[in-house]
Amino acid sequence: MKIVIDAMGGDHSPKAHVAGAMAATRSFDDLEILLVGDEQEINKHLTNSNNISVLHTNDKIEPEDTPTKAVRRKKNASMVLTMREVREGRADACISSGNTGALMTSGLLHVGRISGIERPALAPMLPTLEGDGFLLLDVGANVDAKASHILQNAFMGSTYMEMVKKVSRPRVGLINIGTEEGKGNELTKEAFTLLENAPLHFVGNVEARDLLEGVCDVAVCDGFSGNLVLKSIEGTAESLFSLLKKEMTSSFTNKLAAGMLRSSFRNIKEKMSYSHYGGAGLFGLKAPVIKAHGSSDHTAIFHAIRQARQMVYENVIEIMEKEAEKQGE
Amino acid sequence: MKIVIDAMGGDHSPKAHVAGAMAATRSFDDLEILLVGDEQEINKHLTNSNNISVLHTNDKIEPEDTPTKAVRRKKNASMVLTMREVREGRADACISSGNTGALMTSGLLHVGRISGIERPALAPMLPTLEGDGFLLLDVGANVDAKASHILQNAFMGSTYMEMVKKVSRPRVGLINIGTEEGKGNELTKEAFTLLENAPLHFVGNVEARDLLEGVCDVAVCDGFSGNLVLKSIEGTAESLFSLLKKEMTSSFTNKLAAGMLRSSFRNIKEKMSYSHYGGAGLFGLKAPVIKAHGSSDHTAIFHAIRQARQMVYENVIEIMEKEAEKQGE
Repeated sequence: MKIVIDAMGGDHSPKAHVAGAMAATRSFDDLEILLVGDEQEINKHLTNSNNISVLHTNDKIEPEDTPTKAVRRKKNASMVLTMREVREGRADACISSGNTGALMTSGLLHVGRISGIERPALAPMLPTLEGDGFLLLDVGANVDAKASHILQNAFMGSTYMEMVKKVSRPRVGLINIGTEEGKGNELTKEAFTLLENAPLHFVGNVEARDLLEGVCDVAVCDGFSGNLVLKSIEGTAESLFSLLKKEMTSSFTNKLAAGMLRSSFRNIKEKMSYSHYGGAGLFGLKAPVIKAHGSSDHTAIFHAIRQARQMVYENVIEIMEKEAEKQGE
Repeated sequence: MKIVIDAMGGDHSPKAHVAGAMAATRSFDDLEILLVGDEQEINKHLTNSNNISVLHTNDKIEPEDTPTKAVRRKKNASMVLTMREVREGRADACISSGNTGALMTSGLLHVGRISGIERPALAPMLPTLEGDGFLLLDVGANVDAKASHILQNAFMGSTYMEMVKKVSRPRVGLINIGTEEGKGNELTKEAFTLLENAPLHFVGNVEARDLLEGVCDVAVCDGFSGNLVLKSIEGTAESLFSLLKKEMTSSFTNKLAAGMLRSSFRNIKEKMSYSHYGGAGLFGLKAPVIKAHGSSDHTAIFHAIRQARQMVYENVIEIMEKEAEKQGE
């Protein structure tokens, strides 16, 4: 199995990508990795090149680049070359921590949609207080979604949670402003009806305030709403951590007490952290495409590789496609 | 000035409402308060009835009642009688901590819309890490909003922040999935153009993750999105507090350290709490209608009264109406 990684375009590129790749090839015998990016920079960190090769390019897409333009013009950008490896069958899956918009554009353009899925969806895992987190989709690939897109997201999300996360009969919840049936805007009312009548384990409407409590395994919504939910959760957690930090260092006594609580604070941060959840899958494409967080460290990259490998191993794309075709009939 | 309060329908009814009313009449000489609800229950807590009178009723709207039905059928419910006092000119403003949907229905039906505002908006204040919080609207009064509604929300929110919160030139931000112009769904793109060309201090798109950092004074969006943002922020804060609590009580050392940090934790909780922000204004009606949080304690009720008084005192409704008429021309 070969996984190709865009080693540029993240906050810790390419160091985190190289370290993550080395950890992954050590852990999984069946894995070959191709790193795409500045060879000289990559080689600085590549202390063990077992099953790792490098495809050199100087060009990369910057975070501030306009996605569509960048993808079309920068034909040798590390992200574009990464996608080309997948499209031309030389790799089974790919990972990038670069510009999200460019990844979506490039994914559609170079990897292509599977039949039966009208729009791809971006699907990160988010933490829950107990348990192993939930999948949220879409968080921004498709901001003017129709109810049918939300239904397709539900199928893709269910398949992913079942095959990759080994959750049996994943509970699908529709993100809404109240739990009662009949709540919401026109879009969610229509989506509710579709979900209710689909062969899914649909648990009804779920409220944004209950997501971290683990009310469902797959939370579906349009890409605009999902993005707001994701960023509200992230922003609130960050703000609270910064408030905590400020208070904990505001006096000698506080510093002392905070020192005693160091491992507890670490537990909480760990619980809310992305690193162990891998990246966000860009579902609906002909191969596993994983968007790793821009701030990914080597642990996050390692888990993104593990996730991509698992998706290939379990034939997730093929199953998603079959499911979508069956639903489309 | 007379403010009427629905004393039933909250988690701490009518105790919190009576205590809040007594604190308010002690603080403000110009204030008369009418409490609507179970007289016997109210009198249990009413130790000082200076400038406070009671309108008795046994009936109330329950949290689980269907809003429209309840408002039409329960003609003697405390909330409905509260609204009637305003409609018939016997009170200048009203407050309720009851069923939000019923309050919106009853507000529209009994108090009525001001001209120039197509749809009322529910507008709570939310905390910021530094500074005095921001106004978020709409959080659910109008879930299928048009761009023109978002523009009207911006005007109402600006007027409120300027007149009641004394913020000069309130910064209006459009909640969106990215800060760059051109980001978002069809609705936000259209709203951006309207806001940009309006006589407002529009600061452009703002991301949900930056709201608590205080990027704007008035954050506008459709009611569906606003509700998700509000509940994501609330839910994440609650989840983190419960994680913290669990860690802080997990061992003897932790309990000891947590004891040393008690006042710091209290500061953080205080910072994130609603109590000092009053309630959510239901803007666009012919009188100030304040929705207090269901879990309001006496402090929250006191601040809701202060807020309603300030709105009457500053003629906020009249200014909103003039502004809306001017914009409509």
